[in-house]
Amino acid sequence: MAPGRFITLEGGEGTGKSTLAAGLEAALMARSISVERTREPGGTPGAEMIRDLLVNGPPERWTAMSEALLFFAAREDHVSRRIKPALAAGRWVISDRFYDSTTAYQGAAGGVDAATLSAMRQMVLGDFRPHLTLILDMDPAAGLARADSRATGEARFESKGLAFHERLRDGFLKIAGDEPERCAVIDASQKPDAVLAQALQLIDARLGLPA
Amino acid sequence: MAPGRFITLEGGEGTGKSTLAAGLEAALMARSISVERTREPGGTPGAEMIRDLLVNGPPERWTAMSEALLFFAAREDHVSRRIKPALAAGRWVISDRFYDSTTAYQGAAGGVDAATLSAMRQMVLGDFRPHLTLILDMDPAAGLARADSRATGEARFESKGLAFHERLRDGFLKIAGDEPERCAVIDASQKPDAVLAQALQLIDARLGLPA
Repeated sequence: MAPGRFITLEGGEGTGKSTLAAGLEAALMARSISVERTREPGGTPGAEMIRDLLVNGPPERWTAMSEALLFFAAREDHVSRRIKPALAAGRWVISDRFYDSTTAYQGAAGGVDAATLSAMRQMVLGDFRPHLTLILDMDPAAGLARADSRATGEARFESKGLAFHERLRDGFLKIAGDEPERCAVIDASQKPDAVLAQALQLIDARLGLPA
Repeated sequence: MAPGRFITLEGGEGTGKSTLAAGLEAALMARSISVERTREPGGTPGAEMIRDLLVNGPPERWTAMSEALLFFAAREDHVSRRIKPALAAGRWVISDRFYDSTTAYQGAAGGVDAATLSAMRQMVLGDFRPHLTLILDMDPAAGLARADSRATGEARFESKGLAFHERLRDGFLKIAGDEPERCAVIDASQKPDAVLAQALQLIDARLGLPA
């Protein structure tokens, strides 16, 4: 049995990651691929408990360093107890956010230095990486307006202000520029169907899809 | 104003750290020293929320790596928002556990390698260290029997079995051997009054106490 493929969706608030994840799950299943759809922070019972600490509460609830450590604690649980076993069983895993979000949120936008985050990643993930990362890019003001209208109640990061979200966008684009083999940028201001079609083209080109 | 002193109490379950912390607080206050008594995991509102995830639930709730990251996330909050400000204000801080517990529990007893924990400590604490660490040492079986009779409901670490707690004791004694200038070992099988008297002698000899 061939091991599965690991695809991560990244981008700021309101860029349509969850919608794309659901669309990809349906499209891959229609091609008889066994799919595990998940998200970060979260994805396992333990990581979802850590998620509650991260996405709720006032914006200054945690220092950026505490935040990074909490994300990696949740990620360790998620990777070791769900993602790696699913891939080993031949399933394709689609995760709404992964470590690039930590690099962008706590690093580029939050101020934890890149060397510290990279050392933390090495500790927890070693050389484990997604096979493909799709970065959904759009004007942060428009994204925040979308996220706001969604009203999930998990508003801690959305409330950090536009300057934070501008740094966040720059952070994601820098990741895409630094690792073009792993990453691809999609214009998230397009209609959801167009975003999904482009994502499927990219997956086919980079990873190969059954007909 | 002189900066305060930072004293940490370490040791396995049921070794009398909380009793000693209360005794030291009273004895130092009787010498007109302003004292901040705290504990880990916890000590700030954020860190106490992380504590709930760590001390409750089944023994295998977290991998040792997740656990270490959660402890350091709580510690970052505790150090940056409570311990350092208290020391800067001239207060003496007494903490029931600090990072030596991570080295002993997740490292020596839990299996996370020492280099990883040391790198994590450097990230979060830099060169910040306690001025004095008192390690309460006793036979783990006797300590567990004491802890058991206390019945706090926070039993996750106590339920890990005697072999774990033997490795834990060895871990604490190794720390004391490696850093004799910072650490001192106290025989915790003595009566509480004798433990307190020895602790005060050590504090006086190492840090100097007002008459």
